[in-house]
Amino acid sequence: MTAPLLTEIDHVAIAVNDLEAAIDYYRTTYGCEVEHREVVESDGVEEALLKVADSYVQLLTPTRDDSPVAKYLANKGEGLHHVGYRVDDCAKVLEQVKATGHRVIDEHPRPGSRGTTVAFVHPKTSFGTLIELVQE
Amino acid sequence: MTAPLLTEIDHVAIAVNDLEAAIDYYRTTYGCEVEHREVVESDGVEEALLKVADSYVQLLTPTRDDSPVAKYLANKGEGLHHVGYRVDDCAKVLEQVKATGHRVIDEHPRPGSRGTTVAFVHPKTSFGTLIELVQE
Repeated sequence: MTAPLLTEIDHVAIAVNDLEAAIDYYRTTYGCEVEHREVVESDGVEEALLKVADSYVQLLTPTRDDSPVAKYLANKGEGLHHVGYRVDDCAKVLEQVKATGHRVIDEHPRPGSRGTTVAFVHPKTSFGTLIELVQE
Repeated sequence: MTAPLLTEIDHVAIAVNDLEAAIDYYRTTYGCEVEHREVVESDGVEEALLKVADSYVQLLTPTRDDSPVAKYLANKGEGLHHVGYRVDDCAKVLEQVKATGHRVIDEHPRPGSRGTTVAFVHPKTSFGTLIELVQE
């Protein structure tokens, strides 16, 4: 392999119970402003993206009780939920993950927030880390 | 506040049991190479930094049973441990964290790995996220 497939830390995702309070923390303490907000119905989350250089802090809160993030909060509490890496070609990197024997959550790329194409890699074979591949 | 105090996601830190196996995963699957390795005796960890654009994936493993990362692994297993944000002035941002009523782990900046100056913010009042402020 000649070039790294991960071109940027796209975002660190943080699961929170109170989205407004979390936004206020990052704004008041660190001067970070919300650049984008979106409800992603398919994932049962509302997210707020706060820009840090060319990356984002992604604050996530569930919109319904059966969303994966709601279950995460119930089991583990607030905190780091996943990390998103920007890639040039989501399908290609997803194939590479599978070809090297690692488990994925999404067998095929699918639409993400803010018009991206995304796929999640399973934490079980990625050292406990839920990884999102993000193609802009 | 006029400018954001966080100038870059410096690193996402991932606690792992087997540092070599984790390095191999990021190298083989994503083409990421180790740019820096260091044992930080004071923290009881060995770390490997893999560059992603202007940020790092920081793989962390304990060097002794009583290190905080050893306790983290025993309690929670492998996975996302903390997020490091790059700042221009660690002392100034740490004061801002305290001034806005939030708990810190380090009352004063201290030496970090690769010659940086760092301070940790307590997850209790930062929505469950252990935050490291990193001044290069």
